[in-house]
Amino acid sequence: MTQARFRRVRQRLGELDIDALLLSVGADLPWLTGYTAMPLERLTMLVLPADGDATLVVPRLEAPRVTPHPDLFGIRPWDETEDPVAIVAELVGRRRSLAISNRAWAAPLLALQASLPDAKWQPASVVTGALRAVKDVDEITALRDAAAAADRVATALVEGEIELVGRTEAAVSREISDRLIEQGNEHVNFAIVGSGPNAASPHHDASERVIGRGESVVCDFGGTMNGYCSDITRTVFTGEPPAEFRDLYTVLERAQAEAVGAVCPGIAAEDIDGVARRIITEGGYGANFVHRTGHGIGLEEHEDPFIVAGNCERVTAGNAFSIEPGIYIEGKWGARIEDIVVVTDYGADSLNTVDRSLYWAS
Amino acid sequence: MTQARFRRVRQRLGELDIDALLLSVGADLPWLTGYTAMPLERLTMLVLPADGDATLVVPRLEAPRVTPHPDLFGIRPWDETEDPVAIVAELVGRRRSLAISNRAWAAPLLALQASLPDAKWQPASVVTGALRAVKDVDEITALRDAAAAADRVATALVEGEIELVGRTEAAVSREISDRLIEQGNEHVNFAIVGSGPNAASPHHDASERVIGRGESVVCDFGGTMNGYCSDITRTVFTGEPPAEFRDLYTVLERAQAEAVGAVCPGIAAEDIDGVARRIITEGGYGANFVHRTGHGIGLEEHEDPFIVAGNCERVTAGNAFSIEPGIYIEGKWGARIEDIVVVTDYGADSLNTVDRSLYWAS
Repeated sequence: MTQARFRRVRQRLGELDIDALLLSVGADLPWLTGYTAMPLERLTMLVLPADGDATLVVPRLEAPRVTPHPDLFGIRPWDETEDPVAIVAELVGRRRSLAISNRAWAAPLLALQASLPDAKWQPASVVTGALRAVKDVDEITALRDAAAAADRVATALVEGEIELVGRTEAAVSREISDRLIEQGNEHVNFAIVGSGPNAASPHHDASERVIGRGESVVCDFGGTMNGYCSDITRTVFTGEPPAEFRDLYTVLERAQAEAVGAVCPGIAAEDIDGVARRIITEGGYGANFVHRTGHGIGLEEHEDPFIVAGNCERVTAGNAFSIEPGIYIEGKWGARIEDIVVVTDYGADSLNTVDRSLYWAS
Repeated sequence: MTQARFRRVRQRLGELDIDALLLSVGADLPWLTGYTAMPLERLTMLVLPADGDATLVVPRLEAPRVTPHPDLFGIRPWDETEDPVAIVAELVGRRRSLAISNRAWAAPLLALQASLPDAKWQPASVVTGALRAVKDVDEITALRDAAAAADRVATALVEGEIELVGRTEAAVSREISDRLIEQGNEHVNFAIVGSGPNAASPHHDASERVIGRGESVVCDFGGTMNGYCSDITRTVFTGEPPAEFRDLYTVLERAQAEAVGAVCPGIAAEDIDGVARRIITEGGYGANFVHRTGHGIGLEEHEDPFIVAGNCERVTAGNAFSIEPGIYIEGKWGARIEDIVVVTDYGADSLNTVDRSLYWAS
């Protein structure tokens, strides 16, 4: 698998006329080599020339963490008093067209630019984005397992096993996090709990606000299991929802379902977004759907393809992404429904299967 | 406090002839504004011109997370179909000398470089590093509280309350993590547990290896409490340590204590490293001390000042950093002792106070 990925990356470097790929923090490096750089100030960087052998430049004290693959890349540990930028620059040599991890830190990039003044730089996603966006069977299995674990927590939420009323958002967020770990996640990536007016803030940080009755509670959470991410959102109403909220939720539910239904190989990413947006706009809430419909998912929570207006890339079998429209009424309430889907030849396969209808929490 | 920080940053921009500071992911932004950018692909960036008003460019769906400080910065939310790089470039205007967060992602930096082809770039640490390295009273209190929480976990470790023999490194790491949370940390940054030969890998990932008798176990862990980090290492031996290990540990203990003893305002960072290194070298383990002696700590686990050969910067009252020499015998065992110290007019104030002598775990 790793060898095949190296092959595809080298082929793509050739197609794009890029001389070398430089991978540091972020998911490209583990996707390609199985090794994850520590997100610290000591530089880790794989130098993969289109025309030569790859070398992993790594701090000596982290070198024991690397599983050697001498067939794929050499290892160049650097000592505390060496300059890793100089080592990378020497490995790059006279190559000029370079691509660097999207999430590589600015500080080493600026130092590399000073050492390689003639180089032209691009983000590595031009090389890896489309490759990583098409998941292989093992990756889909991993995403499915991660989604199933998230579903077990979401089921506990909608069935009322996780109490809401009278507890703080932070306490509920902590319980969701603990359950994600219990269900087999290595770590929790986020556990948003937004209640009452906070439900109108899509990326709300769970706060010390106590959840009351007659409120919508948006819970959006995900973890990492066997390296792959989950991401699910369900919205619960505490007590009997008023007609106004039920109307909003009905529009949202239909928008989410129809966007999922629209997914097929060949549809443009922006057209999936368009389906959800049209239904929400026709329902009268267009101005209240303030974010894109979804994002790719895999080793990263957010990766290609992005399901957003302006992205005319066509989705393809093996793509995995979220479908997560939301409606937010500032100062009052909000709702979002999110599932991860995989594109198959026959349409969307929803990895999350927890019921999407409006639940009333007691 | 925040106003004073803005003032000091502007003053430093003037001294360094930098026209604007661009802050994104990383600790500079929360240090200056109290707001932490989400580490996702949607760009958040504070544009702080030396000669004009500051503006926080933020995704609209994250704008509700921002506590407004109209006296300090304006807020420019951007919609999903806008280009945040174009917005930042317009705010920068004709300014040419720019500094950007060290941890800002490469992808937006490359896009900004394309939009601002005449700009000269530096890492923001040239502006903020020395400012952030001098902690104020509130910051030292926060570091002390975080250290005290870590100490309570380390005490449980050295006193044998946390069982080691017969458990996997991963299980011990998980218990340490849980205890860090119980003791008041918002989150755990790392919990290294390296046993037997793994103890010789300074940044070892806790594995499924079962800890046996007659092994050294290096436990290095830290969390974040009220935004500030902790970091402590203690090494425990399972069973009676052989003379060879005791000798190694005696050298290490002296190196750590003397390096702490050498700390005073005005000493060069590299000279503190030199003290620990000289003692370990004289003890016959020079080649086995493969990393620097320490790193600054605050909002980030690792920040200025770095206690490493080649860093001739002089430490100053209010600096906070780790003193953490280690000795690693490949394939066999290893040991490290780490405390966080704060520089005072009278020398080092060790925030960690857990006994550093060699403990034998049963």
